[in-house]
Amino acid sequence: MVVSPEEEHPVKAFGWAARDESGILSPFPFSRRATGEKDVRLKILYCGVCHSDLHSVKNETGKVTYPVLPGHEIAGIVTEIGSNVTKVKVGDKVGVGCMAGSCRNCPSCENDLENYCPKMVLTYRSKYFDGTTTYGGYSDFMVCDEHFVVQWSENMPLDAGCPLLCAGITTYSPLKYYGLDKPTTHLGVVGLGGLGHVAVKFAKAFGSKVTVISTAPHKKEEAIKGLGADSFLVSTDQDQMMAAANTLDGILDTVSAPHSIQSLLNLLKPHGKLVILGVIAKPLELPAFPLLSGRKMVGGSGIGGMKETQEMMDFAAEHNITADVEVIPMDYINEAMERLGKADVKYRFVIDIAGTLKAE
Amino acid sequence: MVVSPEEEHPVKAFGWAARDESGILSPFPFSRRATGEKDVRLKILYCGVCHSDLHSVKNETGKVTYPVLPGHEIAGIVTEIGSNVTKVKVGDKVGVGCMAGSCRNCPSCENDLENYCPKMVLTYRSKYFDGTTTYGGYSDFMVCDEHFVVQWSENMPLDAGCPLLCAGITTYSPLKYYGLDKPTTHLGVVGLGGLGHVAVKFAKAFGSKVTVISTAPHKKEEAIKGLGADSFLVSTDQDQMMAAANTLDGILDTVSAPHSIQSLLNLLKPHGKLVILGVIAKPLELPAFPLLSGRKMVGGSGIGGMKETQEMMDFAAEHNITADVEVIPMDYINEAMERLGKADVKYRFVIDIAGTLKAE
Repeated sequence: MVVSPEEEHPVKAFGWAARDESGILSPFPFSRRATGEKDVRLKILYCGVCHSDLHSVKNETGKVTYPVLPGHEIAGIVTEIGSNVTKVKVGDKVGVGCMAGSCRNCPSCENDLENYCPKMVLTYRSKYFDGTTTYGGYSDFMVCDEHFVVQWSENMPLDAGCPLLCAGITTYSPLKYYGLDKPTTHLGVVGLGGLGHVAVKFAKAFGSKVTVISTAPHKKEEAIKGLGADSFLVSTDQDQMMAAANTLDGILDTVSAPHSIQSLLNLLKPHGKLVILGVIAKPLELPAFPLLSGRKMVGGSGIGGMKETQEMMDFAAEHNITADVEVIPMDYINEAMERLGKADVKYRFVIDIAGTLKAE
Repeated sequence: MVVSPEEEHPVKAFGWAARDESGILSPFPFSRRATGEKDVRLKILYCGVCHSDLHSVKNETGKVTYPVLPGHEIAGIVTEIGSNVTKVKVGDKVGVGCMAGSCRNCPSCENDLENYCPKMVLTYRSKYFDGTTTYGGYSDFMVCDEHFVVQWSENMPLDAGCPLLCAGITTYSPLKYYGLDKPTTHLGVVGLGGLGHVAVKFAKAFGSKVTVISTAPHKKEEAIKGLGADSFLVSTDQDQMMAAANTLDGILDTVSAPHSIQSLLNLLKPHGKLVILGVIAKPLELPAFPLLSGRKMVGGSGIGGMKETQEMMDFAAEHNITADVEVIPMDYINEAMERLGKADVKYRFVIDIAGTLKAE
């Protein structure tokens, strides 16, 4: 027996979802589970629009089942807690990021790396442990295991802070893991979008020197004056790229379109690290020679564990790091998605959920 | 004015060199420099035949100028030292590996990583600082800056020990650098040739669990019974490879022929490391997804610095690690090269230089 999204759980909920590969979002009545003993229920105030939301609603990864209700950069306020919840209390500001669950006892989970747990449950478009589909933050409220809830610092704005739950941890975690978080680090950031602009801010907070690498020359002024980068390279300018060869300790490559990494490897010093963060559909062409002659490496990283996500949010609050956002009403989401596809946003759309989502 | 190899230096020398891309080696009279104040002169006793010797004599890298006199796995005995030499004395057994010089004051050199110095001079087919071509170990003697001379442990055989100067350090160094030298490590070794068989021995000496991965099923018995590997995977057997998914902490990939790394990445646990050691002419196809979803990485490594090379030789002596070798006379070298091209050797040819190289 197929149970409708509206009836599978006891608590009525409301959001916007895509029904097919057009990716068009429209009002969507559904339901949420009752608040379990380890659960936190939160009223959603703001939700960021991540580029992977766009991929998901259009099923560009080829793995989604509709309806898809996106959103994994969620800021809200606790309205109810289960009897065994200790982390937060009613009235607390909280966040929920990309994960809603994990097995909690595999080696990854035991090492605070729930993001690499093979049973990790995404905040939306996953199956939760009860067999129901997860629905994300483009909705009025959410119920989440307290382990996957982030505590919110008082001075962190809800709108400009919520994108950090994905874009922030996705850039902070590799800077830490690959040892690129030092004042002596000279970091390259490829692509100045949702991830890239936050990467620059974290790297500057670590005291690193930052070079932004982009195909778009017009982004230079903004990279340097707006975000505090130290220098800028136009990746299509071979003279510039050659002159900067052998200068970088590491690179965060945030571009998800297929692109060449050969010229990026050239920018690295010996032992330099190129970290891929974009979900690139086509395999990269990796020449072996720079790996051998310079002991360079190509790694990757996917979001971060809950402990590190909390650490990142606290670090961001302490250093006044937020995303640069354009706050939009819920019914602007389809135009926003279209603009996002053209990179026409500085740098993250955030939906004012509480102020503009209206049940019909 | 062009000075002939026989006349450019004051001391007459003799070896075997290739004169053109046929790669055929033949007797070659040349000359060596006089022993400078920091130089060591050594009579060459044995010299290993590395796969890169074969690449070089045939100019498969496209960068050599003929004549090419190969050999960078050199064991010998000191016959003369310069006035400022302190590391060795006349009569000492010594080794010379892949490097004959480096700038000695760049960041790589200052960190005992002369192998990554941009001015590093190869033992053969490089230009030395005096502008002359370097000639390798298929010759009667050698003159080498003491910094690039390795001290030889008393219990290390000269014939079976000399291949460690290349094959040994090429595998030892990445095991150390990438943290794959632990008793808790489960290591994969791809390819059971000159590098691979030594990699297994080092890994077993570190107490690691070792899986050999090869296209050749007949190598299983030898890998396990002969070299002490714990298990064996036939890389073309998809069932075997799938069953072993997610089991390895790291892989040393010693194969220099173009091959797929996708199935190797699948063998790695989260945070696993694939280390490329073969000079693969064609770019590798690197899928982004395993990098992101499992924080896996692909790195490389090229030989090792002098300090680590000495450490490796001492470690090998302590653990009775040598290469498995077939000792050949000098005039067998062309047949040996042909057999090496067909991987028809277990696992390294070593030329008995002192016993068989005769000046005509």
